[in-house]
Amino acid sequence: MKIAVDAMGGDKAPAEIIKGAVHAVQKYSCEIVLVGDSEKIYGILNDVAGDKNLPITVCHADEVIQMNEHPADAVRVKKNSSIVVATNLVRDGECDAVLSAGSTGAAVAAAQLILKRIHGIGRPAIATPIPTPNGTTLLLDSGANVDSKPEHLIQSGIMGALYAEHVLNIKNPSVALLNIGEEETKGNEQAKETYQLLKNLSTINFAGNAEGRDIPRGKFDVVICDGFVGNVVLKFGEGLALTIMELLNEELIANGGAKLLGRELIAATFKNLSKRLDVSENGGAPLLGVNGYCVISHGSSDAKAICSAIGVAKNYVDSKILDRIRDAL
Amino acid sequence: MKIAVDAMGGDKAPAEIIKGAVHAVQKYSCEIVLVGDSEKIYGILNDVAGDKNLPITVCHADEVIQMNEHPADAVRVKKNSSIVVATNLVRDGECDAVLSAGSTGAAVAAAQLILKRIHGIGRPAIATPIPTPNGTTLLLDSGANVDSKPEHLIQSGIMGALYAEHVLNIKNPSVALLNIGEEETKGNEQAKETYQLLKNLSTINFAGNAEGRDIPRGKFDVVICDGFVGNVVLKFGEGLALTIMELLNEELIANGGAKLLGRELIAATFKNLSKRLDVSENGGAPLLGVNGYCVISHGSSDAKAICSAIGVAKNYVDSKILDRIRDAL
Repeated sequence: MKIAVDAMGGDKAPAEIIKGAVHAVQKYSCEIVLVGDSEKIYGILNDVAGDKNLPITVCHADEVIQMNEHPADAVRVKKNSSIVVATNLVRDGECDAVLSAGSTGAAVAAAQLILKRIHGIGRPAIATPIPTPNGTTLLLDSGANVDSKPEHLIQSGIMGALYAEHVLNIKNPSVALLNIGEEETKGNEQAKETYQLLKNLSTINFAGNAEGRDIPRGKFDVVICDGFVGNVVLKFGEGLALTIMELLNEELIANGGAKLLGRELIAATFKNLSKRLDVSENGGAPLLGVNGYCVISHGSSDAKAICSAIGVAKNYVDSKILDRIRDAL
Repeated sequence: MKIAVDAMGGDKAPAEIIKGAVHAVQKYSCEIVLVGDSEKIYGILNDVAGDKNLPITVCHADEVIQMNEHPADAVRVKKNSSIVVATNLVRDGECDAVLSAGSTGAAVAAAQLILKRIHGIGRPAIATPIPTPNGTTLLLDSGANVDSKPEHLIQSGIMGALYAEHVLNIKNPSVALLNIGEEETKGNEQAKETYQLLKNLSTINFAGNAEGRDIPRGKFDVVICDGFVGNVVLKFGEGLALTIMELLNEELIANGGAKLLGRELIAATFKNLSKRLDVSENGGAPLLGVNGYCVISHGSSDAKAICSAIGVAKNYVDSKILDRIRDAL
């Protein structure tokens, strides 16, 4: 198993990406190809790994696609950018999967343009595992595409169910449609049309409409929505978690609880809580619907998140679910 | 000042609604007309208010619109439902505002059909104040309409800015468009078109795109979005806050913090935190864009929330911003 890692993508690239890769090859049995500015990469790699003989190689790419560039245009023009070169490695069979914490739009565009969509898939979807009290709810699409049509949401439902079953090991996963009410007549045109299509789809365990609160409560295994809504919801959750922890800290200071707990215990509590809530702790989200295993990490990923994302990529490849998705469509 | 309160709307109606009204007339200088099943209402009112000579009257209405009914159809057919009768009182000048914790769709439909939209407004919008670390972000539309067009979002921006300035007392409020990225080229078709219209609108302080996380972080005073997205985000926040508090409780039990704090302090901390986070603690959200003051409360509202919502309605009427909205459009 060989994974191509975009060493230049992400707020903390390349240092944290490289550290994450070094951890990962020691934790999982896989090889890694770090793609990007080879001089910089070797410099950091020597510092981090020293003389260790690790299964890490470097593939040079002298351009980087920035966050503010138009994704598809940049992928077409910057043929030697780290994400394009890394994705090419998968297309050419040199690597089994590609991972990037850089521009999500660029990673999605590279996957679509280079690996191509699976036959029968109109739009790929990013499937993000959301932490819930008892496990995980898989939310897709969480931002690969906006302006999805009902058939794209159906495809997301089929792919999400397969991922939940064969990668997350959830038996007969329930699939719900994100909407503004439980009743089948509720919602915008997109949701109402999608509901009717899902109702008549025998291949998945369609459980009706999900409301926003059902996602963090873990009521369903898979929740499908348009990428615009999914992206807004995910980022809203990030901000809200931060705000709640700040307010809690204020409360504990005001009511004397902070003194009783002591600094260390408070710090440990918040650290653990953040960890359990942090979507990026799950490391990476698969991009489903393209001909190749592609995993997308949060832009703020540190070494730990990258290591964990490499684990996600490994499980994803091991599951061989691309074949199942091809069969299902 | 006289406020018509739908005594039959909400999960805890009519008892908690009536109790809330009794608190409110003692707290604010206003009169209240309780609309609904007069026998039931008098029964509870006698228990709660006893001999007190309160400025509360009862207006009989023998039907109730249920949550699962089609809002507009039900408003047309159930002419003697509590929400229709209460809204008629505003149309006829008997009351200054109407408040309901019943079916949001029915309250919106009643307002649109009976009070009519303000000239120049294509769709009314519910403006919900979201708690942030330093105050409030006004989110609209949080569920009055789905499938909004760019011009509807612009109208929401204008109305939201006026509400923020003249009711929430925020000077020159910043108005942002909810989107999936900061750059003006980001987003779905609706967001991209809306951005261009907002950029050229000189009457509001347009501050660009907001991402989901900016709402609970309080980065902008007013955030505008489609009612589908707003509704999903609000409910997601409700569920996430609950999940975070459960996880926190687990952490404190596991790491011994719960013992150090003691039951009472933990309970007090969670209670205060919930209070600061609870959107319904703010009591009510104005429905902006109709010819009359209409306030919508959360279905789960208790007496306290209803009392607070009556306070919202009072400030809203006092602000006279309907005239300003009419002038602005």
